[in-house]
Amino acid sequence: MDRPLHSGTSTPAEYVPTDLVDSEEDVITSLMKYQALLEKDFRGTGMDVEVLLRQFARLRAAIQRRTSDVGQIGDPSIFRVPNRYVQKARDNGETDHLYHLGLVVTADKTAEAFQDIKYVCVGGTPSRMRGFAVLCLEALQIKVPTGLGVTDLCGGHARYVMYKAGPVLTVSHGMGNPSLSIMLHEVLKLLHYAQASKDVKFIRIGTCGGVGVPGGTTVISDRVYNGIYESFYDQYILGKLVRRPASLDRKLCRDLMFHATKPGISLPVVVGNTMCADDFYEEQARIDGAFCEFSNQDRRDFMEKCYLDYGIRNFEMESLAFAAMTHHAKLRAAVVCVVIVNRLESDQIAVEVEQHLEDWTCRPQRIVAELIKHELMDSANGVDNDLQILRQELATTTDHLYPSVNFPYIIGTGNGTDSAMSSSRGESSLSLSQPVTPDEDRKVMNGRAGMMATASSLLTAGSGAFKSVEPVPVGDEVLLK
Amino acid sequence: MDRPLHSGTSTPAEYVPTDLVDSEEDVITSLMKYQALLEKDFRGTGMDVEVLLRQFARLRAAIQRRTSDVGQIGDPSIFRVPNRYVQKARDNGETDHLYHLGLVVTADKTAEAFQDIKYVCVGGTPSRMRGFAVLCLEALQIKVPTGLGVTDLCGGHARYVMYKAGPVLTVSHGMGNPSLSIMLHEVLKLLHYAQASKDVKFIRIGTCGGVGVPGGTTVISDRVYNGIYESFYDQYILGKLVRRPASLDRKLCRDLMFHATKPGISLPVVVGNTMCADDFYEEQARIDGAFCEFSNQDRRDFMEKCYLDYGIRNFEMESLAFAAMTHHAKLRAAVVCVVIVNRLESDQIAVEVEQHLEDWTCRPQRIVAELIKHELMDSANGVDNDLQILRQELATTTDHLYPSVNFPYIIGTGNGTDSAMSSSRGESSLSLSQPVTPDEDRKVMNGRAGMMATASSLLTAGSGAFKSVEPVPVGDEVLLK
Repeated sequence: MDRPLHSGTSTPAEYVPTDLVDSEEDVITSLMKYQALLEKDFRGTGMDVEVLLRQFARLRAAIQRRTSDVGQIGDPSIFRVPNRYVQKARDNGETDHLYHLGLVVTADKTAEAFQDIKYVCVGGTPSRMRGFAVLCLEALQIKVPTGLGVTDLCGGHARYVMYKAGPVLTVSHGMGNPSLSIMLHEVLKLLHYAQASKDVKFIRIGTCGGVGVPGGTTVISDRVYNGIYESFYDQYILGKLVRRPASLDRKLCRDLMFHATKPGISLPVVVGNTMCADDFYEEQARIDGAFCEFSNQDRRDFMEKCYLDYGIRNFEMESLAFAAMTHHAKLRAAVVCVVIVNRLESDQIAVEVEQHLEDWTCRPQRIVAELIKHELMDSANGVDNDLQILRQELATTTDHLYPSVNFPYIIGTGNGTDSAMSSSRGESSLSLSQPVTPDEDRKVMNGRAGMMATASSLLTAGSGAFKSVEPVPVGDEVLLK
Repeated sequence: MDRPLHSGTSTPAEYVPTDLVDSEEDVITSLMKYQALLEKDFRGTGMDVEVLLRQFARLRAAIQRRTSDVGQIGDPSIFRVPNRYVQKARDNGETDHLYHLGLVVTADKTAEAFQDIKYVCVGGTPSRMRGFAVLCLEALQIKVPTGLGVTDLCGGHARYVMYKAGPVLTVSHGMGNPSLSIMLHEVLKLLHYAQASKDVKFIRIGTCGGVGVPGGTTVISDRVYNGIYESFYDQYILGKLVRRPASLDRKLCRDLMFHATKPGISLPVVVGNTMCADDFYEEQARIDGAFCEFSNQDRRDFMEKCYLDYGIRNFEMESLAFAAMTHHAKLRAAVVCVVIVNRLESDQIAVEVEQHLEDWTCRPQRIVAELIKHELMDSANGVDNDLQILRQELATTTDHLYPSVNFPYIIGTGNGTDSAMSSSRGESSLSLSQPVTPDEDRKVMNGRAGMMATASSLLTAGSGAFKSVEPVPVGDEVLLK
């Protein structure tokens, strides 16, 4: 019987479950719940026990039908999207048009091409995602026959680009949560059709504005906040607000931190919380957009609250949908973004910074490629090697991952002139105040929320988070006032 | 005196205006407001009249200083962004880095290149915006020397593309409100630096899902709603919710309608309300995304509410930020989108539809190019020609612009099979029910919200809105079940 539950049953509507059932345990839980509801609501209504039992039997049948809609549970190691319509479509061998990826998928052909995917790495711009695919080929020592190279799987005419380097899929997502969400819906469906592993990891590799973090430093996100300090991705679905928790994988975050700071890589990196904005200008407290209706003092207060009360170390525009959607799909995810401007010093991305951009934007890529390489090696060797032990050591505390500093706000600290203007124009603010260097920062410990430093063997060994931050040469190169 | 108001005055903070003052009238209004406040709050506080007057004088000075911050009011016909920081930067001859457009602007050079802009037309994809620039060159009979062609002003490496065809600027904006908002901030600043006219018109040319409107039909937006039927664009700015009304220009909407339906053009077009979603799948009631947690009945109820109660005729993803930001900048704007799938019949954009896409996506472009051509001709001739008279006639009523129909929901009307699945897969639903043709629609008049048809000379003359909708040949070409 292939009738949908909602049109094919006379069961009282209020007892029809609207959540999706996807395991036998869930079915049993639901049965018990509805039995309890029946007993509570129907007792004393004048109906005899027989009616009660018939009602219950009908409900159980409905739930079983619903379970069969979900299809065969099958191999629990395989990723399935939690959408029974798509599940059934795939099981029926139907084709699916992933419109924005420019792909038409069917179960058999898609599995052949994409079943081996273990990592999905996403980022804003097409060129960076192509670059990362090439980097992965090198890191994983995948030999490419002469005359071949990575090619855009979306065919070059779609809204996104997608490359595949062995078990790594790299996809561009444009700017903003909505743009990312379209891509993610379609990539999740692609993995579903491909019957890829449910252990596939999602990593966003991007750029961001740092909050008290200098340009060139990579921020690995711990928590993700919306613009009012909530870790929820809000959507209006069928006219109603739906809130989904935006949650990243802490172990993946720690593993990335380990690979970023180990000898041989040793890139400047911090773990911090991320505020995800839906706008580049006003929502990120910039005064240089087309509109600005707040004062410098308002902005300073906001930045201080972000920095000290919420441990926010960067602003970007996609992590909320990314964290919420991967979490909702029960997949592990991390966000790794390099700072291209320290927002406590400037609004604008100085033209002079652009010469560093290629180097800087490669840093999150190098960290992620290193993680992938070693995880695949570990997996192939099947051993808990030294890496695992070191990783454990690092995992015992997360406190030291936060840079512990005062609030190094430089712009707009009025000495009579409107310094916010000059710094927002991309000029140096060195004439007003020397930027606080990371080493100096570490001496000052007056952070409020979980910002206190903890001595760590890795940090004292010189490969830790903030010790290795290199001087950023940008300030010297721009015109002093 | 170049000191910012907030750090340079001892005026009581609660009386410092936070709104921006941008005309002499505003200054006077503010003065009167603050005088009234002073008289109300300070009367009976024990202060004598002299103190009151001194307070008032200080306030007036503060307001005057603020007015001077805004800079010379100058030519009232010139567009200025309502942001005094940017105003001052321009007046000081500073350069500005429009990062995502890949442009560095200065007042003099920018004015030389962009001062003549009268129309800014935006759309999602780069290729369409290039195509529209070429169309404008032809429509406006702008001769291009042999060997030259339109070229991407963003240099081919930026997040967006931008072309200029005479007084028309065409810019891509990617997908979703956030992506559009970044572009719009930077284009508004570009126009500000260029000292373009404040009469510049903004038109979004895009694609959309129709609600009871067949593929190939152009929808010109009247109202724009968010996902809970509110005409507001919500942003979190400095941790607080800021709501800005999303409002389009009704006259521009009517003018576009006129040009779409006049003899010689006569394209299928309707005026309707638009729901702007932040997601392509769940927020647009699609069941074929990675997630779907509502039933077919929920979806039907939602679609019916959209269609009948709110007059919503299409879903898209950028009109809310577009309408709110242009309205906030006091500019006139319209949204003109062609339907690529009737969402009452299918979720997916059938692969077979793609052969029509080039023709269909040109339709809004043709309408807008026609409007621009005639407005520029009218302006050059300086006469109220026949066009103006016809336009007046059309403008007397807007009722007839709405297609007046019943609720032609086709998918998911269970005949025992889960028809929503097949139609969402891009297959025809003709086996279940013949689609209601527009002419048949007009006979049935049971709409609830302002949907009743009014006889109109233009409509009876056969060039009106819904009479000229041509048959859409897609249904015949796809596989029947």
